[in-house]
Amino acid sequence: MKELKEKIILEGSVLSDTVLKVDSFLNHQIDADLMKLVGEEFARQFQDAGITKILTIESSGIAPSFMAGLTLGVPVVFARKRKSLTLNKQLYVANVHSFTKKETNEICVSKDFLSADDRILIIDDFLANGQAVLGLMDIIAEAGASSVGVGIVIEKGFQDGGRMLRDKGIRVESLAIVQSLENGKVTFREEEQD
Amino acid sequence: MKELKEKIILEGSVLSDTVLKVDSFLNHQIDADLMKLVGEEFARQFQDAGITKILTIESSGIAPSFMAGLTLGVPVVFARKRKSLTLNKQLYVANVHSFTKKETNEICVSKDFLSADDRILIIDDFLANGQAVLGLMDIIAEAGASSVGVGIVIEKGFQDGGRMLRDKGIRVESLAIVQSLENGKVTFREEEQD
Repeated sequence: MKELKEKIILEGSVLSDTVLKVDSFLNHQIDADLMKLVGEEFARQFQDAGITKILTIESSGIAPSFMAGLTLGVPVVFARKRKSLTLNKQLYVANVHSFTKKETNEICVSKDFLSADDRILIIDDFLANGQAVLGLMDIIAEAGASSVGVGIVIEKGFQDGGRMLRDKGIRVESLAIVQSLENGKVTFREEEQD
Repeated sequence: MKELKEKIILEGSVLSDTVLKVDSFLNHQIDADLMKLVGEEFARQFQDAGITKILTIESSGIAPSFMAGLTLGVPVVFARKRKSLTLNKQLYVANVHSFTKKETNEICVSKDFLSADDRILIIDDFLANGQAVLGLMDIIAEAGASSVGVGIVIEKGFQDGGRMLRDKGIRVESLAIVQSLENGKVTFREEEQD
């Protein structure tokens, strides 16, 4: 997606060969106009998938998910992150390991908001190792619901999450795939659609 | 706001005389159509205030803030919640005490995203004791920026945050003011505009 890639080039900050900071429009400050385009693009790509609900994780996934939900006319559920296990029969729970932060968090979704009839689009801000998506998939499976695919704002193409998910047959649509952050420079994977 | 009050009556769950659960459209699942109306209503009420930025707190404030920001054509910044103090000169930090959870959290905003020129609208999902708004006001003051007022989705009119803020001369616009949750029933304060 052209507007997104231009924004990444303009405002993204390459902190290391693996860390891209996009706090100015996605992870802390939200560029509302850009996130509207992002959400609408997810809606366009998955418009024929019969989606009944969007599932994301707080907090950075909420703005693009909201806009996709608004466009598709479906509700958005954001999974909550939790540090510690509190046993609660009303929740679907999954563990998500962050290789960056070297910690495992629980994510949880109330059983009230996912049902076996749901056809769910997962949306998240970043895809690196794919652990967050796997956690959301676990929750969807627990609910007996179906996943129709995954919409990602920025995929780190040099990490293995995207390949791992696609190898499982999961449809993953990333609006920007960063091929490399080497030498402080963002290089996109070029075969992806704009 | 009529649509919001109807949704609260229809789906809100009164857990006690002080706790109203609205997980089905605001705090966990997001009703995108309703949050669009909510955000647009904040934008309408503050359209002449010269707003340059919207400030909220993750996570439930993000959807209505995003929609207000989109309508007003300004960016949205969401303050991050943190459990522990990590000294960081790049952050504005404030403490927010939750009487409900009996804990104090830090909220923080990067210095990159607030400046002395900013005229800021605060938006939050709930107003009870007003501690979150005071924390956001502290951060705005630290940045030397101006606050033009506060937009609240649901105010608990039986707690003292709304009066405390209005007594300070702060403009507070709440789209629904709950006067009482007694006997398991939601009663709205009726003098408020619909």
